Amino acid sequence: RKKILVTGGAGFVGSHLVDLLMSQGHEVVVLDNFFTGRKANVEHWLHHPNFSLVRHDVTQPILLEIDQIYHLACPASPPHYQYNPVKTIKTSTMGTINMLGLAKRVKARILLASTSEIYGDPTVHPQPESYWGNVNTIGPRACYDEGKRVAETMMYAYKNQNGVSVRIARIFNTFGPRMHPNDGRVVSNFIIQSLQNKDITIYGSGAQTRSFQYVDDLVKGLHALMNGDYDLPVNLGNPDEYSIKDFATKIRDMTQSKSEIIFLPKVADDPSQREPDISTARRELNWEPRVSVEEGLRKTIEYFRGEVDAAG
Amino acid sequence: RKKILVTGGAGFVGSHLVDLLMSQGHEVVVLDNFFTGRKANVEHWLHHPNFSLVRHDVTQPILLEIDQIYHLACPASPPHYQYNPVKTIKTSTMGTINMLGLAKRVKARILLASTSEIYGDPTVHPQPESYWGNVNTIGPRACYDEGKRVAETMMYAYKNQNGVSVRIARIFNTFGPRMHPNDGRVVSNFIIQSLQNKDITIYGSGAQTRSFQYVDDLVKGLHALMNGDYDLPVNLGNPDEYSIKDFATKIRDMTQSKSEIIFLPKVADDPSQREPDISTARRELNWEPRVSVEEGLRKTIEYFRGEVDAAG
Ligand SMILES: NC(=O)c1ccc[n+]([C@@H]2O[C@H](COP(=O)([O-])OP(=O)(O)OC[C@H]3O[C@@H](n4cnc5c(N)ncnc54)[C@H](O)[C@@H]3O)[C@@H](O)[C@H]2O)c1
Ligand SMILES: NC(=O)c1ccc[n+]([C@@H]2O[C@H](COP(=O)([O-])OP(=O)(O)OC[C@H]3O[C@@H](n4cnc5c(N)ncnc54)[C@H](O)[C@@H]3O)[C@@H](O)[C@H]2O)c1
Ligand SMILES: O=c1ccn([C@@H]2O[C@H](COP(=O)(O)OP(=O)(O)O)[C@@H](O)[C@H]2O)c(=O)[nH]1
Ligand SMILES: O=c1ccn([C@@H]2O[C@H](COP(=O)(O)OP(=O)(O)O)[C@@H](O)[C@H]2O)c(=O)[nH]1
Ligand SMILES: O=c1ccn([C@@H]2O[C@H](COP(=O)(O)OP(=O)(O)O)[C@@H](O)[C@H]2O)c(=O)[nH]1
Ligand SMILES: O=c1ccn([C@@H]2O[C@H](COP(=O)(O)OP(=O)(O)O)[C@@H](O)[C@H]2O)c(=O)[nH]1
Repeated sequence: RKKILVTGGAGFVGSHLVDLLMSQGHEVVVLDNFFTGRKANVEHWLHHPNFSLVRHDVTQPILLEIDQIYHLACPASPPHYQYNPVKTIKTSTMGTINMLGLAKRVKARILLASTSEIYGDPTVHPQPESYWGNVNTIGPRACYDEGKRVAETMMYAYKNQNGVSVRIARIFNTFGPRMHPNDGRVVSNFIIQSLQNKDITIYGSGAQTRSFQYVDDLVKGLHALMNGDYDLPVNLGNPDEYSIKDFATKIRDMTQSKSEIIFLPKVADDPSQREPDISTARRELNWEPRVSVEEGLRKTIEYFRGEVDAAG
Repeated sequence: RKKILVTGGAGFVGSHLVDLLMSQGHEVVVLDNFFTGRKANVEHWLHHPNFSLVRHDVTQPILLEIDQIYHLACPASPPHYQYNPVKTIKTSTMGTINMLGLAKRVKARILLASTSEIYGDPTVHPQPESYWGNVNTIGPRACYDEGKRVAETMMYAYKNQNGVSVRIARIFNTFGPRMHPNDGRVVSNFIIQSLQNKDITIYGSGAQTRSFQYVDDLVKGLHALMNGDYDLPVNLGNPDEYSIKDFATKIRDMTQSKSEIIFLPKVADDPSQREPDISTARRELNWEPRVSVEEGLRKTIEYFRGEVDAAG
């Protein structure tokens, strides 16, 4: 039984990870500033003796006694991370420095939730961990992409210089229950638009691709990575690749929606293709996604149906 | 007449910039922690009423009243920036955030000394500003490269969000008097080795290329950029490209040295080619290098001869 810190633990991915760790009997501390997270996501643990929720911003130092850190705090959807780019960068830079300082002091292992966005608009497809990426330092996505890139750099600097035990997950597009309905990401947008029979909004031609993993798979991968021996970056994603246009059709069909698919202007610097090469995760963690996109979508549609109905 | 802050002003480039600004009659404040800089570089101004030298680390906040900031504080040579990678990253991230916070508060224009290293090991040659780069986030150079990349991102985040007036110089390899003799960079190494008739150390095959500019040209470019209207990144460098092997021979010939040229192992992630496309600087700043590499080397060899003689 360990004392485990989850920064961003009231968010979408973080709250599912908390569920796993709590179910294993660990003591779990969540740090969250509730920028995009919600207390409701961890409400079911609030009265559990092993659980603490601390309203705290990771850009500020904090003293805790813990054994492991899952460092997830950072807005993840483009509209959210572009809402206050300065804050997004401070969260990834100062926030990661603080968590590494903490990890160093208490000799905790720390896992960074990095992202496929560090590959930018990739010229290599699918993307292995050895690919260095193609990111615009001054574009609208840079506050997120470059913040995560330098956070990775910080991790190995503290490892090599201070012996901090580090893990890096490069997470590819993930979906599932507890995604914020106003999140602005493609899965939540398309499902809600479909359920409400509103226009399904494709940005650009819809030929750009993404590969979607269900959140339960991701959380198992994060856990395996944290507790395994491999300490170089590992892609976690489902290689099942869709064009955004096919994905729109799929969701419309699955929801039996009457929505029309419409095409809006392309977003600046939008990656044109993305698919994880997961051979490292297969080899080193014996991990691969178990939930098909179809099955994951069914559960997620059900969740959003509840949210939409609740909102009236 | 302006109040001008130069961070890293006791370093190689910074001290030459201070000379230019002081000669124009400005009030100049230097912030430096003397990690790689030397008081001797600005000694000749210490008693001037317009000059102040503040021993300060840019990773700490500071209150000043100034009109312009040249933000140069950061070790620049690979052995120096790799000596304490954690500190290098903190300098570029926390240091740049502090200087941007200062710029925002006092409404000062801020110029970042970025670097050709943000292009990494470039796959496009020569490098225009529109090239996104090829950098390894977890390699030995990342503490410098990724620190500068995210510093660029921060600049535009503060510009777009807080109206801070920003300038970005992407500086290519620069040389001249006041380079630190133990700096470890190629120009200082090769000249000192030649003057002492010691082996000239080439890392790798020597087929890798660099383009070298004389520091006087750079300083004029920085000044033109700061005081012009163009606010996107600008390459500042001399497109005169040499293989490191030819460069070694050139320096050996110019110093009439008896040194042998020897080949040591290649350095990890060493960029294989580098040459600035300076059409933006030509067009927007009416700037181009005036000092030939040959002429610059003559002055620099003279300087190092003095240093070597003084050391005995
Ligand atoms: N969901 C994905 O598809 C995806 C893909 C790649 C990477 N990731 C990464 O996984 C992590 C979690 O993503 P998510 O999808 O759960 O996003 P999310 O927005 O739901 O969760 C992020 C959480 O961090 C909190 N937070 C943000 N800034 C903070 C700060 N300064 N201090 C404290 N807490 C702060 C938010 O309130 C929220 O609870 C992020 O680091 C994200 O970059 C997610
Ligand atoms: N010289 C080049 O070829 C070159 C090329 C590209 C970019 N640059 C950039 O130009 C700037 C100056 O480079 P340089 O060649 O003069 O290097 P330098 O090492 O001679 O100068 C850097 C100065 O910054 C100071 N400094 C470092 N960390 C600091 C901190 N935390 N707080 C306060 N001061 C600090 C050092 O003491 C030194 O005086 C750097 O930002 C560098 O990245 C230089
Ligand atoms: O238990 C801790 C230890 C450190 N830090 C923060 O982590 C940062 C980086 O720590 P490090 O030890 O690298 O920094 P230093 O204290 O040496 O500047 C510091 O700014 C601290 O504020 C923290 O929040 N909690
Ligand atoms: O309503 C939407 C939301 C997103 N997208 C596109 O879907 C892809 C995935 O976008 P998302 O914001 O979910 O994630 P990311 O771009 O960060 O992978 C991108 O090409 C977006 O342009 C879209 O066409 N319509
Ligand atoms: O005159 C100033 C103003 C700000 N800062 C620092 O700059 C950083 C970023 O400033 P910003 O205004 O973005 O931060 P905030 O104060 O809003 O957190 C802060 O941490 C301050 O410590 C500084 O050193 N001098
Ligand atoms: O004694 C030396 C120092 C440097 N270099 C090479 O010269 C080039 C320029 O190195 P420097 O450290 O001056 O600058 P940077 O690599 O940052 O451009 C690189 O290919 C180095 O590997 C070399 O061959 N011998």
